[in-house]
Amino acid sequence: MQPLRVALGERSYPIHIGAGLLDDPALYAPHLTGGKVAIVSNPTVAPLYLARVLAALEGCGTRVMSVLVEDGEQAKRWESLDRVFDALLEARCGRDSLLVALGGGVVGDLGGFAAATYQRGIPFIQVPTTLLAQVDSSVGGKTAINHVRGKNMIGAFHQPRAVIADVATLDTLPDRELRAGIAEVIKHGCILDADFFAWLEGNVDKLVGRDRAALAHAVRRSCELKARVVGEDERESGLRAILNFGHTFGHAIEAGAGYGEWLHGEAVAAGMVMASELSVRAGTLSRADADRVTRLIGRAGLPVRGATLAIERYLELMQVDKKAAAGKMRFILLSGLGRALLRGDLEERFVRDSIAAALT
Amino acid sequence: MQPLRVALGERSYPIHIGAGLLDDPALYAPHLTGGKVAIVSNPTVAPLYLARVLAALEGCGTRVMSVLVEDGEQAKRWESLDRVFDALLEARCGRDSLLVALGGGVVGDLGGFAAATYQRGIPFIQVPTTLLAQVDSSVGGKTAINHVRGKNMIGAFHQPRAVIADVATLDTLPDRELRAGIAEVIKHGCILDADFFAWLEGNVDKLVGRDRAALAHAVRRSCELKARVVGEDERESGLRAILNFGHTFGHAIEAGAGYGEWLHGEAVAAGMVMASELSVRAGTLSRADADRVTRLIGRAGLPVRGATLAIERYLELMQVDKKAAAGKMRFILLSGLGRALLRGDLEERFVRDSIAAALT
Repeated sequence: MQPLRVALGERSYPIHIGAGLLDDPALYAPHLTGGKVAIVSNPTVAPLYLARVLAALEGCGTRVMSVLVEDGEQAKRWESLDRVFDALLEARCGRDSLLVALGGGVVGDLGGFAAATYQRGIPFIQVPTTLLAQVDSSVGGKTAINHVRGKNMIGAFHQPRAVIADVATLDTLPDRELRAGIAEVIKHGCILDADFFAWLEGNVDKLVGRDRAALAHAVRRSCELKARVVGEDERESGLRAILNFGHTFGHAIEAGAGYGEWLHGEAVAAGMVMASELSVRAGTLSRADADRVTRLIGRAGLPVRGATLAIERYLELMQVDKKAAAGKMRFILLSGLGRALLRGDLEERFVRDSIAAALT
Repeated sequence: MQPLRVALGERSYPIHIGAGLLDDPALYAPHLTGGKVAIVSNPTVAPLYLARVLAALEGCGTRVMSVLVEDGEQAKRWESLDRVFDALLEARCGRDSLLVALGGGVVGDLGGFAAATYQRGIPFIQVPTTLLAQVDSSVGGKTAINHVRGKNMIGAFHQPRAVIADVATLDTLPDRELRAGIAEVIKHGCILDADFFAWLEGNVDKLVGRDRAALAHAVRRSCELKARVVGEDERESGLRAILNFGHTFGHAIEAGAGYGEWLHGEAVAAGMVMASELSVRAGTLSRADADRVTRLIGRAGLPVRGATLAIERYLELMQVDKKAAAGKMRFILLSGLGRALLRGDLEERFVRDSIAAALT
């Protein structure tokens, strides 16, 4: 099947989607730069797929090394990043090296940021092995690590040379992570495509049941939608912000509960319920449509209530969010299903009420 | 006087050069973004100039905070960078914040890298207060911190919005640092401008003696030359590499002697002597011209001999240099005064002999 293409001028790149692509040398070969290749992965993914990716790259006649970082969100910190740098320097990887990030969103974000900053930037390829990474984090060039004061606070925009999304890797994904990925799929329907949202209402049970065809369609449509947005606004100066629907609340849930307690997609799910509630209060979304959002999230087995934190704590955590321009909170709202808008003029009581409406 | 302009399309920016520019609000005002301003400086520079820059920025009606990092090369490490991030996050600086790097090359490299990666990138202004920073590091967008395995190994290309080079700040610069800055001025003559090299031969005593007019001319001409190169090759894919003349050897000296023992400019000075020796051996430079380079460096009070390290150690340190493509050493040579070229095909014995020729 033809790859999708993220249109970013000289930084354009293909997204290959399909089953069994992981070890196809032809997908790696065009991006080899003559130097070494370093695969960044983690101890969960490596036993499953590292040998195959290594073999594919070695089949291209290149020298390949690998470095593992911890599993989970706690890997997105300086110490893990420095371990990658150390391995690259020990192996004398030059500026002509290529980094391959093999794993979920954490490996992609961390590996991508390592590529963005190693010797002031080397190329990299994303090989996402979770649904969340395939439909969201591997597309768009956002890379980052966390800071104790906030998630993704240190990072860079650094586009991959290619994304290889092998949907066969979803077979090994734990149920909870599969559902977390579905949260971002639902998000794409909410903000960009009412027809896709309706398709999800008809097929969410298949997605949860790991129907291959349904998953492949969901990944492809999600990537198409996200690629279109990223192509129009690479550095999040405008339109791209709508991809953060549910994320301002979601980040507060993740940070407030302690990173790792909630999966990112779970926090975004509850965050989307809060953002839909806020949309109703702001008068941009009908109660019936907000209920459709909440119902679909619930049917995917995702939380429709946020972490149990004081509302003051939510507000405190949300104010350091990156989308807070000039100290003022801005929110992505829905103006009907499939349409999003950015609002910076909302009354604080609306925000408080929306959080309260989606707490246990 | 008209500012110089670094021509980089939408990332173009002015370099203002003159005495007393540091606290001219008109130079800052066009770059204020509506958010907060964070000044990064160090305990040596802050007592001299911070209050004036603060006042100038506050005069623009903006909220200003400052954060100090350690003095010296040891500040170019993660812990210092994290202190900057922590201060920015504690002050709830958003993506619309502006960072001002007030100090020498270390503050510029570290502050610039903080700006490159804070919330995936915020704008910054360079206010260099050393000769080295004014003629070299503040121009061109290279930012970085060091790794224990090599200098400037972690970084980003991130262009400033403006450079404000106040030559009056050179009055407070220690002699040794003034001379270290002259090394990069000499470098620009060596690689790009034979007439400027000859001017330096006639005026190096004035530079060492802090003649204001001579210094201003040297800063301006150096920035012009460097801006031209950066404008043609922003990300060091070709031409820009010539700015590293003397740096492959110089980095080995700095790393081998321990960061901080040699000033960067001192190491580059001895490195230029080695690179000139190598040029003679490669047959691209006459002995007479190599001697002119060494003599000018000596008259500036700069070292013409490298750190006392085993030649093997030099070679080891040079192989992890960022310019080492595919594990092969590449060198910037002179092909006559004012002309540089990149060579990757040199015999190792030439390299060894050139190091030996410039050891104590």
